[in-house]
Amino acid sequence: MKINTAIESFDEPLYLESGRILESFELAYETYGELNEDKSNAIVVFHALTGSHHVAGRYEGDRKAGWWDPMVGDNKPIDTTKFFVICVNVLGSCFGSTGPMSGKNPLRLKFPVITISDMVASQMKLFGRLGIKKAYAVIGASMGGMQALCVSIEYPKFTDRVIMLASTYATQAWAIAFNRLAMEGIIRDERFKNGEYEKGDFKEEGLYGFAIGRMAGHISFLSPASMDRKFGRNYVATDGLYELFGRFEVERYMQYNGYSFAKRFDPLSYLYIIKAMNIFDATRNYDSLAHSLAHIESKMTLISFKEDKLFRPREMEEIRDTLVDIGKGDLVEYVCIDSDYGHDAFLVEYEKFDFYVKRAL
Amino acid sequence: MKINTAIESFDEPLYLESGRILESFELAYETYGELNEDKSNAIVVFHALTGSHHVAGRYEGDRKAGWWDPMVGDNKPIDTTKFFVICVNVLGSCFGSTGPMSGKNPLRLKFPVITISDMVASQMKLFGRLGIKKAYAVIGASMGGMQALCVSIEYPKFTDRVIMLASTYATQAWAIAFNRLAMEGIIRDERFKNGEYEKGDFKEEGLYGFAIGRMAGHISFLSPASMDRKFGRNYVATDGLYELFGRFEVERYMQYNGYSFAKRFDPLSYLYIIKAMNIFDATRNYDSLAHSLAHIESKMTLISFKEDKLFRPREMEEIRDTLVDIGKGDLVEYVCIDSDYGHDAFLVEYEKFDFYVKRAL
Repeated sequence: MKINTAIESFDEPLYLESGRILESFELAYETYGELNEDKSNAIVVFHALTGSHHVAGRYEGDRKAGWWDPMVGDNKPIDTTKFFVICVNVLGSCFGSTGPMSGKNPLRLKFPVITISDMVASQMKLFGRLGIKKAYAVIGASMGGMQALCVSIEYPKFTDRVIMLASTYATQAWAIAFNRLAMEGIIRDERFKNGEYEKGDFKEEGLYGFAIGRMAGHISFLSPASMDRKFGRNYVATDGLYELFGRFEVERYMQYNGYSFAKRFDPLSYLYIIKAMNIFDATRNYDSLAHSLAHIESKMTLISFKEDKLFRPREMEEIRDTLVDIGKGDLVEYVCIDSDYGHDAFLVEYEKFDFYVKRAL
Repeated sequence: MKINTAIESFDEPLYLESGRILESFELAYETYGELNEDKSNAIVVFHALTGSHHVAGRYEGDRKAGWWDPMVGDNKPIDTTKFFVICVNVLGSCFGSTGPMSGKNPLRLKFPVITISDMVASQMKLFGRLGIKKAYAVIGASMGGMQALCVSIEYPKFTDRVIMLASTYATQAWAIAFNRLAMEGIIRDERFKNGEYEKGDFKEEGLYGFAIGRMAGHISFLSPASMDRKFGRNYVATDGLYELFGRFEVERYMQYNGYSFAKRFDPLSYLYIIKAMNIFDATRNYDSLAHSLAHIESKMTLISFKEDKLFRPREMEEIRDTLVDIGKGDLVEYVCIDSDYGHDAFLVEYEKFDFYVKRAL
């Protein structure tokens, strides 16, 4: 599999949904496989909140492969012997694309709020530069699914196939509440300095409040049942049961993941991306979900996971039902995967859903 | 209804489950109604994590009544014209009973870890002083339910009727994980000063990390469905949609409740009480749940709430099933209330469960 990583600069303004303007911007992206001659074999993968453009394969020295490695590669469900796969780091993120800490004079809290539509609009400019007028398919899970839905509504001619997993047409209160924990944790941490920290300040020791917010995130990605299976009531062997700070294994897991994440992700980027997710609403600017979805021309494959509480099956079912109601039922395939992994299922139980992805392609 | 509030001092050691000893201790408690001549009409109510002995009625000038006011009072489900109701502030708490910040030289982080059994043992000493050898019934929800279960196992002759709501025989990973957010928030907050803060330090401005932990608690008490109903995607009218710190109503609710709670509850007490909940396990010291429950002689009324994820119906069902398995099926009545309020239901949907409480009494 041929992997290519690059950064593309745009010296042109990006008009944001908020009315603000990004005078120029950069996008980091990665591609897998080769674009065919008529540029008709591109599959766009959209990443989730903390993901990056590094979907598959390993960089030299890497312990872990890209975040969706089991899905993307030679002879894998998204088969790079046939398709040219591209993933772009979203605007606002911290892996090379323009965000609040980019550049020599980062905008920090003056960086404009960006939306899912803005993320997609910026990527469309990149696809244009690469000569991809029409993608074979677009696919995304969680926040990636929001971008995929956005493409289907705002760029209905861009692709014939849209695949959305573990996502929604509008973020609901439960997910917003979890995001608030991270937001509150970050802004209340003294070391955040109201956004005036230095790059690298948290490399050795992550922002505590951010780590706690991320721990909350880990709860929201799982389900009570998957936690039972994963941790049960196992207690850390070296901790005392009657020590106030003795820990169950689930607590050690949260600490480990929370603090290590806070060292490698930028807190300002996190604030901006969860904001984009929170305010995502495919019905905005339309009278109703029906009016919004009426633009859709692509075949939609919607995949939910039964115990996902962040983006519940019933939210996807509303998309399906609405498409049926407006006479577009032939365009939609909906499947609810029986999994008790919660939201995390799209990164865990590949064998339960990869069939539907392959079929859609 | 006659209300009486008092504090009782015990100048005798309390031998704790951990092996440590409290040389002396105090218990704050409140009673409602009158104890009859043969002292046979006492109903013990056990409070939950953040509750107090103030179950019902209003203190002068109070805006809000006690935490279970719809349940306890004259001609209410727990009828104080017939019964003498007593509730004791648990050991470790901050409403008058001995806890980590009690006394002139508070023990702070040197206060011993207490368990649900310790809480119950201390209360038994109080009931003894009041001449209550046998209670008409004991009842508790959430952590109160743990105390009720503990009574049924460790003091099987103390009462003929035990009522447990929204509780468990052993706290599971999902609940422990939420408690970790609060623990982490408190200990990482600089103003916590490793427990060396002064009483009153947080009266004006609560500990941020504690407030965030409490916000997480509020998520865990609700369910996605009840949040949809309560908040939906309503946005705070005075906040801008494209302001980074603009808020949805659910976020305002969390902030309001989190920060106001952090002003009135002691963070050290919170650490000790969630620790007691986390390590609660009715099977400890026994080979199995069956061996533990074999001690039970009281009629058990178990009430779960369908969408409660902290203490799930299946945890109560395990108690029921185990009692049936060991030939004590005639002692147990189990009901799962159809509510989507989540754990909070026991403080909200009284009309759905008060019938079962009345019947059990």
